[in-house]
Amino acid sequence: MFKWIDHVIIAVNSLEQAIPTYEKLGLKLDRRAKMASQGVNQAFFNLGSGHYLELVEPLGAETPVGRFLSRRGEGLYLIALAVADVSEAMKTFEGQGIRTIPVEPEAGAPFVHPGSTHGVLIQLIERR
Amino acid sequence: MFKWIDHVIIAVNSLEQAIPTYEKLGLKLDRRAKMASQGVNQAFFNLGSGHYLELVEPLGAETPVGRFLSRRGEGLYLIALAVADVSEAMKTFEGQGIRTIPVEPEAGAPFVHPGSTHGVLIQLIERR
Repeated sequence: MFKWIDHVIIAVNSLEQAIPTYEKLGLKLDRRAKMASQGVNQAFFNLGSGHYLELVEPLGAETPVGRFLSRRGEGLYLIALAVADVSEAMKTFEGQGIRTIPVEPEAGAPFVHPGSTHGVLIQLIERR
Repeated sequence: MFKWIDHVIIAVNSLEQAIPTYEKLGLKLDRRAKMASQGVNQAFFNLGSGHYLELVEPLGAETPVGRFLSRRGEGLYLIALAVADVSEAMKTFEGQGIRTIPVEPEAGAPFVHPGSTHGVLIQLIERR
């Protein structure tokens, strides 16, 4: 069902500090954005072929990323896997009792809950 | 310099428990292996196009993965990024004062230390 690793999200305390770190590693900052519905500021580093690394800093302590940082510290936050049909994948998973985190379509893509994956937050990205 | 996300490694307490979880998510177990030099048992799930997810369980508490699990619990352990020339990449990083973890060639591929990446263990994989 999963086709490839589309992108990886890294949680950081501060984009101002983390962006230069990743630029030093040879990555090129593509763009920055704010996603209020997820409570994050984002920085995107394209790797080519559509794959990318994303850094996120929380908009506050009481956001999902803010809570992740206080619990586990900076580091890998989620992997986004490409699937051909997100709705179908979500239906299949829910039918099997796998915990999911639905998201309103305008707020982005849904997730499989870390409680059903041995601790990995997996986002489902529709790619043909 | 980085070309794509080659694979992602997930640290788990037990492959016996985790493999069925990932099979339930629709992934197909490709093979299992043991890498004594890294202190892990491994399970590989190919996504096609050479990309894969790898589960690792530690061979003991005093291994890198064992220490990771006791500190942070199960979850994303590392991302492996493809580069054209690993030796050149390591030289460039070391010249910039970036912390690296060299590895004997027969023991696998080297790493960039999480202390230089805001908490992300990055492995460098040579892919042409």
